[in-house]
Amino acid sequence: MIIDCHGHYTTAPAAHTEWRRAQLAASSAGERPPPYPSIPDDDVRQSIVDNQLRIMAERGVDVTIFSPRASAMGHHAGDEAVSAAWARACNDLIHRVVTLFPGRFAGVCQLPQSPGVAIARAVPELRRCVEELGFVGCNLNPDPSGGHWTAPPLTDRYWYPFYEAMVALDVPAMVHVSGVTNPNFHATGSHYLNADTTAFMQFLQADLFTDFPGLRLVIPHGGGAVPFHWGRFRGLADMLGRPPLSESVMRNVFFDTCVYHQPGIDLLFEVVDVDNILFGSETLGAVRGIDPRTGHHFDDTRRYVDALGLDPADRAKVYEGNARRVYPRLAALL
Amino acid sequence: MIIDCHGHYTTAPAAHTEWRRAQLAASSAGERPPPYPSIPDDDVRQSIVDNQLRIMAERGVDVTIFSPRASAMGHHAGDEAVSAAWARACNDLIHRVVTLFPGRFAGVCQLPQSPGVAIARAVPELRRCVEELGFVGCNLNPDPSGGHWTAPPLTDRYWYPFYEAMVALDVPAMVHVSGVTNPNFHATGSHYLNADTTAFMQFLQADLFTDFPGLRLVIPHGGGAVPFHWGRFRGLADMLGRPPLSESVMRNVFFDTCVYHQPGIDLLFEVVDVDNILFGSETLGAVRGIDPRTGHHFDDTRRYVDALGLDPADRAKVYEGNARRVYPRLAALL
Repeated sequence: MIIDCHGHYTTAPAAHTEWRRAQLAASSAGERPPPYPSIPDDDVRQSIVDNQLRIMAERGVDVTIFSPRASAMGHHAGDEAVSAAWARACNDLIHRVVTLFPGRFAGVCQLPQSPGVAIARAVPELRRCVEELGFVGCNLNPDPSGGHWTAPPLTDRYWYPFYEAMVALDVPAMVHVSGVTNPNFHATGSHYLNADTTAFMQFLQADLFTDFPGLRLVIPHGGGAVPFHWGRFRGLADMLGRPPLSESVMRNVFFDTCVYHQPGIDLLFEVVDVDNILFGSETLGAVRGIDPRTGHHFDDTRRYVDALGLDPADRAKVYEGNARRVYPRLAALL
Repeated sequence: MIIDCHGHYTTAPAAHTEWRRAQLAASSAGERPPPYPSIPDDDVRQSIVDNQLRIMAERGVDVTIFSPRASAMGHHAGDEAVSAAWARACNDLIHRVVTLFPGRFAGVCQLPQSPGVAIARAVPELRRCVEELGFVGCNLNPDPSGGHWTAPPLTDRYWYPFYEAMVALDVPAMVHVSGVTNPNFHATGSHYLNADTTAFMQFLQADLFTDFPGLRLVIPHGGGAVPFHWGRFRGLADMLGRPPLSESVMRNVFFDTCVYHQPGIDLLFEVVDVDNILFGSETLGAVRGIDPRTGHHFDDTRRYVDALGLDPADRAKVYEGNARRVYPRLAALL
C-alpha cells in the first residue's frame, strides 16, 4: 500500500472558495457572513475524481492523508470567530471527501488559529475532527500572523495545552504555515521552506520532546533547508551543548518527500534515517507543471523515491509503515 | 590560488566588542558613546594570527574576503547614528587587518543600515570603504529589523539607489542578515538560511536583473534551501510565467560553499552551474566544532570541495576564477 501523507484540497468547489471571499468581505464590513452554501455531493465528487483520484491512479497511490488547502487557511485574516467558522467549513468538506471515497482519503484538520489567541481555543475543533469525524491528525501553523512571525516559538509553553490534547488523542501535527501578507515572502517559494527550517531549529534548541515524549510532528517539504545543511545542524547541536539530533529531535520529528527533483530526494535519504521519512507529494499543490528535463510532473515524487532502489523493508516503511506509526488512527480507516 | 569568499572577523579584540556594548548602553541611556578605544596593532595581529591565519594555513587558503562579524552588525539596535558609528568602527578594523597582512585579506564592508531609513544613506560608507579603504564588496542586510522582516523585498525600488552605487563602483554584495530579536529564529540556525531562501525567491519573482544587468549578489550558506529544492524553484518559475532560472537569476546570483557536510556539497555541485559557485567557509563562524563522523572541522569546506574531484578548469573557477569575476577589485590587491 502507498500512503501519501501530504495532500491538500486545492481543488475544492468554487462555492466553497466563494463563501470564504464573502465571509472575509462581511468581516471587513462588520457584517454577518452569508450562510455557508449547499454544495452537492456531485460537485465534491467531481472535484476529486478529476484531480486527486486521477493523479493517485496515475501514480499508484492508494491513500492520501488529506487536509484543507494550506495557503487558504489564512489564520491572519479576520478574527478568531472568522477563523473558527472557516476551519469548521473546511474540515467538514474534507470529511465529505473522506466519506465519499472510503479508504482513499484520511482527514487532517485545519485549526481555528488566530494571532494572539490562546492555542487552547483550537482544541475543541481538533477533538471534534478526531472524535466525531474520524480525522487522523492536524496541521499546526507556527506563524498564524501570515509571515510576521509574532507567535511564540513552537517550543514555548504557549503551545503546551495543544500538545497535551494531541498526545491524549494520539494524533500528530504537520507543521504547516499558510499564506502571507508580508511582501518579503512567497508562500510556497520561501515561507513554507523557512517555516520548516525554523521549526526544526526550535526543536533542536529546546526540551520539548522531553516534556512530550509521545508528541509526533511532521515537517513537510523534506524538512525545508535541514537535510541540505544536516552537517550545520549536527554541528550547531554540538556547539550549543545539545544532545545529538538522533536523540533530541528525530525520535519525534519526521520529514516528508515533497522535494521535487531526484538529487534532493537522494540527499534526503542519504542523511535522514529511513524511519523518519514519510512519502508525500503535496499533490495538487505548490508546483503543478512538468519538468522539461524528465518529462514528468515535478511533484511526482514517487518516481524519485522508486529510483532510490530501496530494499523492500525500507520501501515499505517510507510508503506505508512510517505513516501508520506516525498516524496510528489510520488503522481504523484502512 | 584559493580564495575564501566568506570570512567574518569573529575574533576581533575584546576592546572593540566592549566599545559596542558601551555604545549601545549609552544609546539606551540617551547619552553620548565613549570614544572608540585605541587598539594596538599587536592585538589586531594576534587575533588574526591565532585564528584566521592559522586555519588558512592548515587548509591551504591563500586569501579570505573578510567582513565584520555578521551576527554583530545588529542593524536593529540603536538608531541610524548608532549604526553608522558601529559600521565605521567595524570597517576601519577590517581595513587594519587587510593592511597588516597584505595579500591575505580583502575587505568587505558592513553597512550603516537602520530600519526605516532610506538605503541611500548607506551609500557614502560604501564609497568610503571602496574608494578610500580599497574594499572589494559589501554585506547587504535584507532584514535590518533583526528577524521581523519589515523592510521591502530586495527587488523593491527602495533598494535601487544602493544598487546604482554598487554597479558604479563595480562591487558585489553578499546578502547577509544579522542577529535576531525575534525569538522564533536562531541567527545561524534558521534566520541566515531563511534569508538566503527568501532572497532567491524574491529575485525569481521580479525583474531586478533586467533593470541592473551588471548587479552581482552572492547568496551565502550554499543558497539556503534553494539547491535542495532546485526542482521546486525551477517549477515555480515555470508556474509563475517567469524565465528559466538560468536566464532570470543565475547570471547575477552566486552561491558559496558554506555547507558543512559532503552530501550537501555534492548536491550543490550537482544542480548549480560551477560558474555560480564560489568557495567559502564562513571561518571562524557559525559552526566551530569537529564532526565526529569525519574527525575534521564541520566548516573545513575545502575537504568537501576537493573530494568532488572537479577537473582542473572547474576547480580553478570555484577556488579563484569566480571570485575574481564577482569581485573584480580583487585584482588590485592580489
